[in-house]
Amino acid sequence: MNRRGIINRKPVVIPFSSRLREGRALAQDVWSIFNAANLPPDCLNLGQGYMNFAPPKWITAAAEDALNTVGPNHYSHPKGRPRLRNAIKQFYGPQLNRDLDVESEILVTSGANEGQYSVFTAFLEHGDEVIMFEPFFDQYLPSVTFNGGKPVYIPLHPPSHDIPKPTSNDWTIDFEELRAAITPRTKMIIVNTPHNPVGKVFTRAELEKIAALAEEFNLLVMSDEVYDCLVFDNKEHVRIATLPGMWERTVTVGSAGKSFAATGWRVGWLIGPASIITPTLAASTRIIFCTNSPLQEAAAAGLEQAPLRRFFETQLKEYQERRDVFVNAFDRLGVTYTLPEGTYFVLMDSSSVKFPDDYPFPKSVLGRGRDFRACWFIAMEIGVSSIPVSEFYCEEHVSIGENYIRFSFCKDLDTLRAAGERLQNLKKYLV
Amino acid sequence: MNRRGIINRKPVVIPFSSRLREGRALAQDVWSIFNAANLPPDCLNLGQGYMNFAPPKWITAAAEDALNTVGPNHYSHPKGRPRLRNAIKQFYGPQLNRDLDVESEILVTSGANEGQYSVFTAFLEHGDEVIMFEPFFDQYLPSVTFNGGKPVYIPLHPPSHDIPKPTSNDWTIDFEELRAAITPRTKMIIVNTPHNPVGKVFTRAELEKIAALAEEFNLLVMSDEVYDCLVFDNKEHVRIATLPGMWERTVTVGSAGKSFAATGWRVGWLIGPASIITPTLAASTRIIFCTNSPLQEAAAAGLEQAPLRRFFETQLKEYQERRDVFVNAFDRLGVTYTLPEGTYFVLMDSSSVKFPDDYPFPKSVLGRGRDFRACWFIAMEIGVSSIPVSEFYCEEHVSIGENYIRFSFCKDLDTLRAAGERLQNLKKYLV
Repeated sequence: MNRRGIINRKPVVIPFSSRLREGRALAQDVWSIFNAANLPPDCLNLGQGYMNFAPPKWITAAAEDALNTVGPNHYSHPKGRPRLRNAIKQFYGPQLNRDLDVESEILVTSGANEGQYSVFTAFLEHGDEVIMFEPFFDQYLPSVTFNGGKPVYIPLHPPSHDIPKPTSNDWTIDFEELRAAITPRTKMIIVNTPHNPVGKVFTRAELEKIAALAEEFNLLVMSDEVYDCLVFDNKEHVRIATLPGMWERTVTVGSAGKSFAATGWRVGWLIGPASIITPTLAASTRIIFCTNSPLQEAAAAGLEQAPLRRFFETQLKEYQERRDVFVNAFDRLGVTYTLPEGTYFVLMDSSSVKFPDDYPFPKSVLGRGRDFRACWFIAMEIGVSSIPVSEFYCEEHVSIGENYIRFSFCKDLDTLRAAGERLQNLKKYLV
Repeated sequence: MNRRGIINRKPVVIPFSSRLREGRALAQDVWSIFNAANLPPDCLNLGQGYMNFAPPKWITAAAEDALNTVGPNHYSHPKGRPRLRNAIKQFYGPQLNRDLDVESEILVTSGANEGQYSVFTAFLEHGDEVIMFEPFFDQYLPSVTFNGGKPVYIPLHPPSHDIPKPTSNDWTIDFEELRAAITPRTKMIIVNTPHNPVGKVFTRAELEKIAALAEEFNLLVMSDEVYDCLVFDNKEHVRIATLPGMWERTVTVGSAGKSFAATGWRVGWLIGPASIITPTLAASTRIIFCTNSPLQEAAAAGLEQAPLRRFFETQLKEYQERRDVFVNAFDRLGVTYTLPEGTYFVLMDSSSVKFPDDYPFPKSVLGRGRDFRACWFIAMEIGVSSIPVSEFYCEEHVSIGENYIRFSFCKDLDTLRAAGERLQNLKKYLV
């Protein structure tokens, strides 16, 4: 004690785990840099991918029903509520050409995110390598490293500049590059189709080539298909799990949040063989114990009633109109963009946008890819926020991604039209 | 290909992670053995700790309001919704004698379970030791080992047999034993008060001794206080974070599920210094991204309105009546039990229950502690289910726990009275 009778304690230092140093887990992420709180108050937010509209009333009504009974306010089975597992079986079984077993082949998770995290926990051994295509959904990287895995990056190659109106199909895989990346430590490959942020819907031929490599090298395939209800222009959405021999090594990921405009409900699901679902259930049971019950009931109602209400057909038409209205702004402006075949994202090539080098950029966007500054400039000067795509590349590949910025069009038409009008003001900065 | 043109594929074997082999993660857990589906249909379920009543209407109404707007159906900030963080600040700040910073000292999690898992992810290095008191909440064990940690077990010593009417305060810590268990690899100690399943409310003197050791050896303290609103008989609930010097090394865990009879909502929270919350946020953001939004709004309404409605005072009286009604059955029966000072669990000493050795027990309960057979026998013959307490001990210490079985009294009075009546039929099996 000192003479005032106060104990002089040493400052407390309890070191955090070294796993946080890997995988950018402590870096300021793109979502907090381009958070609405940092941008002008009237900025139209096309950054983060959530809807500015609510889920359908007939689905939220099912959540209200659940809240007004006893059982659905309490623990669910860690596998998920029987009603939701049954609804998933009925909805996805025909698409996967399988009579799904609700006890061993379906797992409800706290969002697709936690489901994917649990797959990594269940399957990765320290030093196991996981192949992911760039640009990648940014959660994959730390989710892999937290579980001892090592991400291996294969870029999707952007459209050549001589394609006047590229689509997401013009982002291509170099299969020799992919094969060369496989080592004896490769355990898993992540497929994301429709792809965030490119919008690419992988073709059957591409998936067959990935499948052949998975089989040759005995890889687990995590197929993140959370945008499966958003495939435009009658393009075929092929599920890799349906290719010959692939069921046994594939886990397919789905999301109520994406399907029903309810990103905050945190209800997702995994579908796969018992050999994948059982260990993943063991992981998920310890990580979260179970997923929230009332919104599982609502998601079940959504899947049960969607076919009768032709909900997904209607929703798809709405999203296709949103896409077409929004990209029309780029056409009028004369900038290059990638027309997405799926998802609610569109990539604009920002390399033609010239911003002053001495623009008062905040520290957080300096020293990052050029796209960070482009996004900041457009948000501040034009009033439309977007997300820099180099965030979705490893450091070595930032130069591939830094031309692109991502806009989310999961917004009502008025917002998209207003954003499109504002974007016309970019004209004076184009070179 | 074989001659029918079918490719002969090798059976797919993708090994799961070795981490699942540790921490009983793949063993059949006690919850699935004593699942209602395995027991007689009219069995009264006092096994798993969830209520057979719903949360208050004024709280579910807030969830319904949230479902009927746009924002609370979409992503929340990974830290938690501002409204809920503010409500936690207002509710817990005075109890912790601190002006809590909602940006850096509070983290909303997907149930207390995921919050605790995230602390382990954020702080454990491979081989770090975590001290837990036995009997322990069974999720701690695999949550520690999944994150590379090593559990170290310190038994709470059961009441001596010459205490005629023991309370949970008669379960004691041998502090020399605790000190001797600390090694240079000890990183963390888990305190659980009120304690599941013993019902023990740690005394100030006990917590001061734990605090002194935490300070001497620079340990992180995880204080699981999810039953903080269930402390009976005007006993003082001391929060270890309020002891001198302890704030900086303590993370306090709370739960909306326990507080508001909504175990299926999966909303919990962590409160602690930024040095603990910031790394834990980094972990939790990757594991789940964020917690479901509508039920965060409801939990916020619960904490906001509870003081005005004197909700916790009323609820506590109700639980105390439930406890007293239920333990009266043990008094009448003449079996020894531990009167709990907190939680909604009561331990009965089952050593006086004599069951036939050749009773047709299922495989799942054979080769486990004697309490597994006692629980099974009582469920089948008496029609009341409970949980064997040796599940909450490490293998070496099963003999300490196997006298005890746990009943949950978070049920309505009619159910508890009916269970108490049925338990009188145990009389003929008592020795």
